[in-house]
Order: sequence, then structure tokens, then C-alpha cells
Amino acid sequence: MAPRVNPILEALSTRYKTLKKLTALDAKSPEVAEMIAHFTSAALDFLSSCQRIPLVSRVPEKTYFSFAKAGKKPKLSRAVNDNLFDADSAKRNLDNLLEGTLDRIQLPERTRLLYTIAISYCCAADLLKTGDQKTPATFFECLIGHFFARAFGVNHRTQVDVLQLEDENTTLPTDFIYDLGPAKPKFHVPVKTSTRERVIQVFAHQRVLDGVHGFGKFKGILVCLAETKLDHTSREVVEICVPRQWNLYYRFIAVMHRFYYFDVPKKYEALTTGDPPMAVVPFATFFDEVKDLAAGH
Amino acid sequence: MAPRVNPILEALSTRYKTLKKLTALDAKSPEVAEMIAHFTSAALDFLSSCQRIPLVSRVPEKTYFSFAKAGKKPKLSRAVNDNLFDADSAKRNLDNLLEGTLDRIQLPERTRLLYTIAISYCCAADLLKTGDQKTPATFFECLIGHFFARAFGVNHRTQVDVLQLEDENTTLPTDFIYDLGPAKPKFHVPVKTSTRERVIQVFAHQRVLDGVHGFGKFKGILVCLAETKLDHTSREVVEICVPRQWNLYYRFIAVMHRFYYFDVPKKYEALTTGDPPMAVVPFATFFDEVKDLAAGH
Repeated sequence: MAPRVNPILEALSTRYKTLKKLTALDAKSPEVAEMIAHFTSAALDFLSSCQRIPLVSRVPEKTYFSFAKAGKKPKLSRAVNDNLFDADSAKRNLDNLLEGTLDRIQLPERTRLLYTIAISYCCAADLLKTGDQKTPATFFECLIGHFFARAFGVNHRTQVDVLQLEDENTTLPTDFIYDLGPAKPKFHVPVKTSTRERVIQVFAHQRVLDGVHGFGKFKGILVCLAETKLDHTSREVVEICVPRQWNLYYRFIAVMHRFYYFDVPKKYEALTTGDPPMAVVPFATFFDEVKDLAAGH
Repeated sequence: MAPRVNPILEALSTRYKTLKKLTALDAKSPEVAEMIAHFTSAALDFLSSCQRIPLVSRVPEKTYFSFAKAGKKPKLSRAVNDNLFDADSAKRNLDNLLEGTLDRIQLPERTRLLYTIAISYCCAADLLKTGDQKTPATFFECLIGHFFARAFGVNHRTQVDVLQLEDENTTLPTDFIYDLGPAKPKFHVPVKTSTRERVIQVFAHQRVLDGVHGFGKFKGILVCLAETKLDHTSREVVEICVPRQWNLYYRFIAVMHRFYYFDVPKKYEALTTGDPPMAVVPFATFFDEVKDLAAGH
């Protein structure tokens, strides 16, 4: 098929600032859901006109491909998990995003839907933008910001008060913070498209919150898209994982309550039966357990 | 003066891999000192043919300039502290680097000498290389690796054994580790050309070492070139500092024994009289206190 640049999507790739602003204003609002659905539809339309280039997967039991605009030297999108990407299902179920009824979809299909929403915009941005890694990260933050705010019924903050003996106000800049109210659970939610070796920051921020406010006051929940890395020359896909470091960080820096992934890395999945066990699960399960989380479990 | 590209330096900018290899082999060796001196001389020669472009300093009481190859759109090097850069003194005193007698130079001149050695190669690399930030960082690591190994009489390692109840060998990858022997001090020495908001990694690694081996077993010493940031369009220089976060990280993640800077940032200097006080000092003082450090003080 001949390459076809979607002019709508090129506009969208600049409109992400509006999405960012709306999310900061009221992440749980229907306007944010609509904009995410709109972005996803446009991205899927654009991607349907792209080629799918098979990749050499170095990850056991996983198959990956890249989207590419046709041409002599096709530019590749990030790696897409073949088993999780499902454009038809995403288009069919996008209304559940708007209506906030994602929990009604069966877990396997919900996992594919969420992955497809998250990765489509990122891939479209990979192909249409040059050298701007901020756009996909911002979209991903808005997406997670919306899901959490809508599920918990409160918007996020991005700083925490730090108690002081002396009379000075100190605040700690953080990722998303959800405070469900007095004597109710509070959550510290770092959001990353990938963590790699930077994951130590996540544990360290949790450690500061534990130190400042006491253990268990803020529960740490990491939300991450994937840990894949694509070598654009050899077209090999690997997952960059440091499970032994995770074990050390968990034992010696801070305990994290959940690690949600849209594409759960094999080596981190194994940590669920490690010592101590760490809760590394597909993000789709969030919608099943959000009531338990809100109840402090 | 007409611009003149130094062909020797262009060769040197690829020869840094040899320096890296020699440092990994035996950082305290005379060969490493010779190579650093050689690199510095070549860099100073090259920079003497460059223009000095005044910068707009937004840092109180500090003046900065950039080196630039003459031309219509001159490419700027990183910001250079005018009071600390002293090419004549550096050429005159380079023998003290070779002979390991830096402690014989008076502190103010030693501070300028060390700053000039560290910044010259970085500036030359800024102007001669494109988009390769790894080279200056590698040179800086080799420089610090040499100073510490020579002063302590032992080479660094870059991993630490982690004790386990079960029968498995786990190691933690780290920055430089110096082990002065059984029942003698051990040091954890992260080396960065700048830290910015990534400094939390330094405290978090220290925390893991404190947790694994107990408090005080490994003393943390950060070595950093500067925290300046140059806006290449407006030519403004700022220091990116987060002193309130440093205070929180120090109190709630881990205590660091020293913070050495080649160009001490104003806002971190103020932490020396903070609560708790943090030892932020010019790197030149290392040569005065290395015996105390080695004795466990």
C-alpha cells in the first residue's frame, strides 16, 4: 500500500499540549476521555496505512513488529507486541473508555485494549515526529492520570508537603499523588513509558515519602508501558531488565505496593514468585482491584 | 585570530578509549597520569587558538565564558568559570600531576589547576565532537579514578558483593568503590560531570550499601565537575540546584560523607551551614584530607 501521511494526526501531534492542560485541570473529566479516544482513533487510522515490519524477538514467547511508513529506508516505530496489539478490538471497545466501564470487559481483551490504546499514539508519534520523546511520554501520563483519577474519584497532585520542626514550608516534587481523604489511603504513582536502570529513582522517592510520613502512609504504585528496546539496525528486540537490582532496591530502599505493566516483562513477571515476592501484574488488573486499593488493601 | 583546528586533538578525541582501558587496568599508574597530562596540554593548545565568548552569568559572584571556534555561527563550548580557568598556571604545574605532588600547591592555585585540567578536555571535546556527551564524562571518570587510586594506593572496583542468606551470589553494580583492606575504610565514589535532578540515584545507591553492609561501612563521596547549564541561544548561564531536595535525600535516604565540586555551586555551598550540615567542598581539598579519610575520619 502506498504511504499516506494522515494530516489529522500531524495536527494531533501538536494538540497534545491541550490534552496535557485538560489533564492538569481535571484528569477525570469526560473531556480528557474524549480527547484520548479521539487521539487513539486517529492514531489507529494512520497506523492502518503503515506497513508492519516483523522484528527479531530476543524475548522468549513474545513476538514483536514495528510500524513503518513505506519507503526506501523505512523509519521504524517502537516495538509492538503482536499478541497484545488488536486494532479491531480497540475500535470496538473504545466506548468503554468514554463511559468508564473498562471493568466490564474480560481481562484478556481488556489487556489488549489498554495496550493498543497506549502503544498506538506512541507509534504514530514515533513515525510522525522527529527526536521528540516527550510527546509519547506526555500522552502516557495523561492516559494513566485519567484512569487513576476516574477510578479513585480524585485528581492527582504532583507534590507532597514535608513536615518540618522549624517554621518553613518544604514540598517534595513527586510523580502523581492520590489522596483519597483524611484517614483514607494515599498513593504515590510514578508513571514511565520504560524504567531501565532509572528505576532506582522510583524506589528512592518512595523511601523519602516513607521517611517523611511513616511506612504505609503512601502506597507506591509504578505504572509502566514496557521495557522493550529495539535496535533499529539489526531489528532485534530485547527487554532491558535488572531483576536482581529490583530485589535489592525493594529490600533496602523501599517497598512498592504494585508494579503495573501494559506489556509485562518476562524477568519481572518472575519476581512475583521471588523472595520477597513483588506484585508485578498487567495494568488491566487495576480495574478489578481498584476498590480494594481504595479500601486500603 | 584565524581559527585553527588542532589535528593532534582530533586524534586524541578518538584515543580516549585507550585512556579508558588503561584506567580500568591500573588507574593509579604513571601511564594514566601521562596520558591525562598529554590530553590536557593538547586541549590547552587547541583552546588557545579559540575565541572566548563572554556569557551572561545568572550566578551571583561568578563570571563565565565559552570557548568557540571562530566563524559566522560559532559553536560554543560548555560554560567556563572565569576565576577558576588558568591555562598558564595549568601548564606550569602539570608536572605535579605526573609526580603526584598536587598537595604541595597552595589551595587556591590547586583549585584553579584542577578545574583547568578537568574543563579543558571537556571544552575541546565540546567543540571538536558532535553529539557525543560520553567522551567528556569518560575523561572525567578517568581523571577522578586516577586521583583517588593514587591517593588511596588502591584501584577502584565497580561492583559490591551482596550478602545473602541463600546460596546465591549477587553483586550490585556501582560507581567507583575503594576498599583499603580488612578493617580499613571503604568508599563509595559516584563521579558525575553534573547531577541535576539525577542526584537521587547517588543517595539511593548509598542507601543500598548502608542497608546491605550496615551504616558507615562504605562512606559516600560524590565527585562532580559543576552544575552549570548554558542556554546556547540566550548565552545565559545558570546553576541547576535543588538544595531542598538534597536536604530531604540526606535526611531520609542516606548520609553522604563528602560532596566534592570542581566549581562549587553557590546554593550547595550554603548547605555546609544547613541543618544538618552537609560537607560540600572544592575537590582540591581532597589532597589535604586524604590521609584523614584513609584513617577513617
